Amino acid sequence: MATGRLEFFPAEKPVEKPLPMKLAALVLDEPTPSFAAVLTRNAFAGAPVVLARRLLGEPLARGVLVNTKVANVGAPGGLEDAQLLQKAVANELKEEPQRLFVLSTGVIGWKLPVEPMCQLLPDLISSLGQGDLLDLATAIMTTDSYPKLRSVQLGQGRLCGVVKGAGMIEPNLATMIGLILTDVSVGREELREALSAVAADTFNLISVDGDQSTSDAVLAFSSRRYPAVSAAEFRDALHRLCAQLAEDVVRNGEGTAHVIEVIVRGAPDRATAQAAARQIVNSPLVKTAIYGNDPNVGRILAAAGSSLGRIAPDVDLSGMQLFIGGLRVYGEGCFQLGDEAEKRLSTYLRQVSLPEVRDYPPHEEKVLIELDLQCGPAEARLLGSDLSHEYIKVNADYRS
Amino acid sequence: MATGRLEFFPAEKPVEKPLPMKLAALVLDEPTPSFAAVLTRNAFAGAPVVLARRLLGEPLARGVLVNTKVANVGAPGGLEDAQLLQKAVANELKEEPQRLFVLSTGVIGWKLPVEPMCQLLPDLISSLGQGDLLDLATAIMTTDSYPKLRSVQLGQGRLCGVVKGAGMIEPNLATMIGLILTDVSVGREELREALSAVAADTFNLISVDGDQSTSDAVLAFSSRRYPAVSAAEFRDALHRLCAQLAEDVVRNGEGTAHVIEVIVRGAPDRATAQAAARQIVNSPLVKTAIYGNDPNVGRILAAAGSSLGRIAPDVDLSGMQLFIGGLRVYGEGCFQLGDEAEKRLSTYLRQVSLPEVRDYPPHEEKVLIELDLQCGPAEARLLGSDLSHEYIKVNADYRS
Repeated sequence: MATGRLEFFPAEKPVEKPLPMKLAALVLDEPTPSFAAVLTRNAFAGAPVVLARRLLGEPLARGVLVNTKVANVGAPGGLEDAQLLQKAVANELKEEPQRLFVLSTGVIGWKLPVEPMCQLLPDLISSLGQGDLLDLATAIMTTDSYPKLRSVQLGQGRLCGVVKGAGMIEPNLATMIGLILTDVSVGREELREALSAVAADTFNLISVDGDQSTSDAVLAFSSRRYPAVSAAEFRDALHRLCAQLAEDVVRNGEGTAHVIEVIVRGAPDRATAQAAARQIVNSPLVKTAIYGNDPNVGRILAAAGSSLGRIAPDVDLSGMQLFIGGLRVYGEGCFQLGDEAEKRLSTYLRQVSLPEVRDYPPHEEKVLIELDLQCGPAEARLLGSDLSHEYIKVNADYRS
Repeated sequence: MATGRLEFFPAEKPVEKPLPMKLAALVLDEPTPSFAAVLTRNAFAGAPVVLARRLLGEPLARGVLVNTKVANVGAPGGLEDAQLLQKAVANELKEEPQRLFVLSTGVIGWKLPVEPMCQLLPDLISSLGQGDLLDLATAIMTTDSYPKLRSVQLGQGRLCGVVKGAGMIEPNLATMIGLILTDVSVGREELREALSAVAADTFNLISVDGDQSTSDAVLAFSSRRYPAVSAAEFRDALHRLCAQLAEDVVRNGEGTAHVIEVIVRGAPDRATAQAAARQIVNSPLVKTAIYGNDPNVGRILAAAGSSLGRIAPDVDLSGMQLFIGGLRVYGEGCFQLGDEAEKRLSTYLRQVSLPEVRDYPPHEEKVLIELDLQCGPAEARLLGSDLSHEYIKVNADYRS
């Protein structure tokens, strides 16, 4: 792998100083048939995602070029630009273009500065092999405050992954780019099935702000250097890796002061459990209360009730119980609160909060919200974040 | 009508000074069979809503008592407390209890201070007739920064309404209380049908933060003093009244710096149009960009695409057009932006914004977002608000 930087003037906005763009190339020694992708389902997907969908049909893949700052979404000639870039990388590598992915993240609507990007490619490609995974994780960062890199042992080799993403994280990926690598052999279909299944249970169950981005992509490649392990073993390792990476993304959310884990149990079915959990974790009122370390637990039940009233209006909530940080705050038809409980909850929220300034993940604590509907067997679990002043600040003028 | 105040110590939270509660009574000279209600569909509805659902079956209604500060939701013995209060009002009025509504708004989980409330009732009821609609609109305010009162001419009489609500406003009402009065005769069923239909198109199409509250209620009463008008005329007047009140609520949203109107046209069906409009108006990324007067129009299409990808994944967006404030910013498959367009959009966003400090609605401007999917006949329109620092501040520690 290799990383580089360039500066450019966007065509769409006059700027006094050129803007910085980072590039990162991840290239395998040999093309592999064992590659997979999970891509955003946003109907307004970016050109790199449209191109990636096509490349999934190719017999072999060699690697990927990632750029920051310009997402290449909705820009004139976006697909042509992505293909120009793809060809330029192929040219440097003496590889076939259709074996190379290009991924972009950044501002929507701006045109990719293809020319300066192509000028950087000879240097970038000739320095392949000089960078490591931490360089790669760092190069794809945008509003991330620290690189996100995880690795698990697998058979005689390893399974590693880097992700970028720190906002707009929601079911079905969000502004997330993930690159997963393994040197353990795995069949093409086995890898694809495992990645789809695992992403549904990890990256698709995190939610920072309820939007699903135009550019989300997780790619996986196997270099097939070491012998294969069993399908179950592979999937289990991939699940552990992606669960860690997904949580890293939430923990590094834009302005996140609390990571929130919502578990809804005892629902009539999984869809109802997921919808209730999502309504809780996406509720601005719940998110702001948690940000303020204010145990305004009524808002949690109001959010759940809002979803249940829509999806399962006849559900009987008389046995419902709510726990925060293990403390039962609702049961037997009413809140179980009081002075001491309120104090314990405030203290708990403060204890699991994240410091405002951080360049590394300071701990792995979460606000645990468990809602037991006591009216069925189904369960769902979602990760999310609170809503802070910092989030507004980061997002009110992202492009300047 | 009459209004009053009291102070109380909540059982659930030790406070140094007692908390203020406001009460307002709206009582008709005679009971009327022509009354109607639209109530929250939240599955975790408050005791006053549960009681109101029962009262809709009664032949006659006389009026309503409204209190602030304690919502009577999820508190032990909540329904009994609501009924105690109802009986106490009836007692003062020498009226049958089942002809009186009680509505509460405020903190979820706290117990209604029934005793001090009952002590205030004799004074409150004996001063009926001394207050006017503006007093009523003022008495039901909570985080509202100004009273919301509208009136339209109808036949030989009038149709008037007051609302309270300034946050948590979302499809299916939110923390909103509305009281609608007319002296024009209208049949019971005609009133109920008109109110349901009109609420669906007005109060249920505003969205501040995506939650649906436990306490929302709009009640309507006719004193039947003047002759009836045609059903169409009545419904039209009610629609105008409620549309104005709904917009007032959004304009007074907690920390609202921009009112946003989203119109999605050319959708295959109304559900798809509504879902896309709701995703745009509820997207924290869109809301924060508008708050920052940053025309980050990509986020609007990303939000719409997020909804469309889920609901109508095969929709053809090649003819899609996006207009902001009448300016076309997307069409012919790409953004139609540039230096001048960006400047015009920023200026526009600043022009239609609301000043931070206000005790009255300074203007009726809105950010107009029109998305034409060009793939069908259906249309939907939603009102919402941006997401500001002030919203976080108000909601991070609402209860203290």
